[in-house]
Amino acid sequence: MATASTGAKPTPERIFNTLNAYQQTEALRTAIELDIFTAIGEGADQPASIAKKVGASERGVRILCDYLTVQGFLSKENGRYALTNESALFLSRKSPACMASLIGFLASPSHKENFEHLTDAVRKGGTAAAQGDNQKPNDEYWVAFARSMAPLTGPSAAFLAQLAGMAEQKPCKVLDVAASHGMFGITFAKQNPNAKIVGLDWAPVLEAAKENAQKAGIAERFTPLPGSAFEVDLGTGYDVVLLTNILHHFDPPTCEKLLRRLHAALKPGGRAMTLEFIPNEDRVSPPTAAAFSIIMLTLTDAGDAYTFSEYQRMFRNTGFAETTLHPVPDMPQSVLVSRKAS
Amino acid sequence: MATASTGAKPTPERIFNTLNAYQQTEALRTAIELDIFTAIGEGADQPASIAKKVGASERGVRILCDYLTVQGFLSKENGRYALTNESALFLSRKSPACMASLIGFLASPSHKENFEHLTDAVRKGGTAAAQGDNQKPNDEYWVAFARSMAPLTGPSAAFLAQLAGMAEQKPCKVLDVAASHGMFGITFAKQNPNAKIVGLDWAPVLEAAKENAQKAGIAERFTPLPGSAFEVDLGTGYDVVLLTNILHHFDPPTCEKLLRRLHAALKPGGRAMTLEFIPNEDRVSPPTAAAFSIIMLTLTDAGDAYTFSEYQRMFRNTGFAETTLHPVPDMPQSVLVSRKAS
Repeated sequence: MATASTGAKPTPERIFNTLNAYQQTEALRTAIELDIFTAIGEGADQPASIAKKVGASERGVRILCDYLTVQGFLSKENGRYALTNESALFLSRKSPACMASLIGFLASPSHKENFEHLTDAVRKGGTAAAQGDNQKPNDEYWVAFARSMAPLTGPSAAFLAQLAGMAEQKPCKVLDVAASHGMFGITFAKQNPNAKIVGLDWAPVLEAAKENAQKAGIAERFTPLPGSAFEVDLGTGYDVVLLTNILHHFDPPTCEKLLRRLHAALKPGGRAMTLEFIPNEDRVSPPTAAAFSIIMLTLTDAGDAYTFSEYQRMFRNTGFAETTLHPVPDMPQSVLVSRKAS
Repeated sequence: MATASTGAKPTPERIFNTLNAYQQTEALRTAIELDIFTAIGEGADQPASIAKKVGASERGVRILCDYLTVQGFLSKENGRYALTNESALFLSRKSPACMASLIGFLASPSHKENFEHLTDAVRKGGTAAAQGDNQKPNDEYWVAFARSMAPLTGPSAAFLAQLAGMAEQKPCKVLDVAASHGMFGITFAKQNPNAKIVGLDWAPVLEAAKENAQKAGIAERFTPLPGSAFEVDLGTGYDVVLLTNILHHFDPPTCEKLLRRLHAALKPGGRAMTLEFIPNEDRVSPPTAAAFSIIMLTLTDAGDAYTFSEYQRMFRNTGFAETTLHPVPDMPQSVLVSRKAS
């Protein structure tokens, strides 16, 4: 029997905890829904005071907060709960970096349903859902994404803008492909008053981007481009094309079809900047990037978490001169910079 | 703001992974359903050969096996997968300790539905489901438990039998309360040919116990006692009363009601032996025992993972002379031994 040696005595605890892992998702969702983290951040630190603030039972709050402590979202000492640094920064609604809105997309009923059909997806080699072709619009889904996922972009968007040299404030024309909430392009525009952004996405999705551009005070430099990235007239002369979390939805020939169009739209010397989950060549590390592939298996016909060498091949095949890899600090994603020859 | 210092720079990765944690449950369920572990144990070690053996797509199997490697259920070297010691022992159907049947109970749709209503349960302080009173029968649920959960009992049942001194083979009358699959009492009877077991549970549930007693060759020493532990005539003169995973379903007054009946049924000098998830007094460690409480919040009106001091109080209040704590080696549960005065 093919068996790897692990050293430790085998116990069924990991199996038990994995079959219960869905409870972690629901507990965090519930804590966000009830706004437990904000209540603790405001000073309520025992079940009775937290329960009073969030309008729940003392017993339910005690059990939930103990569970959140086990999962690392709270600390507990002498019966009093406190936020971890992480929860204070990302889960309290008082924090500008609050990610509470993520529960509107991650852990949504449609994602959970996809995973309930994982056995079928593994049999078939692609999603068991009716819609797996992400070249077609899926407005409800992508509007939910645009309305929920913006807070997760902060560190990556800042890193992308820095890599792109936005601080130099040179005139710059940026195409944000599958712009969604628009926050990547908007971050470029905020750092560089001479940057102009074209945000490409389905028309109903772009409503979120337009609102965010307005809020950020850069609406006059944000041009919405509604339609399919595979079909719409992209224009030309771009300095930068942003490809954030889009290529993973497609098989390599489809990615190449898109990359060819983007190569044509770039200026000579222009750059495609791709933000992605990029596992190592072993495809099993680092954990979060490697684990992303199974989400694409359940959601799409043929999407994947591609390795760097796979991405290099796609960019090379479509005319790009060179592609370099830049891990985003403290985040599970990486940026690829692919240059069009001057 | 109340914040615990953790040292590390806060990142949103834990939040992202927790909102995706349900995927771990579904991936393990799918791997068991497709019998991936047995196939790898039999020597298939690459996506193509595994896919052929389990009747699935190569692409789906590659993505699933990479995910299982990330989660620690497989290892991968040079593109070849191998079972971990744990998976070989507990997840291959060729192993006598195989736990594949657990997916018939853990991660069942009814449990997942309970957790989808966790917010309501926290508000209310008890299950949001129609049935939360575990003094009443719930045959479909407990039959599923009896048909699925027996493999998880192995190490705990052996430890209980050893603590009870079954190896000495003295005549012994054992009452197995909420016997379910019967495997605790049956383990006693197998180790001690002079042990007689009375298995108490709802009549439809006891069918599983009777079959297991038959298979174990101890049917003539196994007496089914159908009915409610709170109402049926228990008989008297027991040397040992087994309380495995039952007390956590009730509030302390209800537990005490049951314990009083069991105290009366024991011989002087007899022992109640309780197998439970028993967190430390801080209620947040060790992790698996502490995390169990939230399952009781979603499943029952008032059940809990009680601490040792809470159990000591319940046994003291109901006439037991002393209660001692014995952690089960390599398992997340503990045994309490509570003695009736001689």
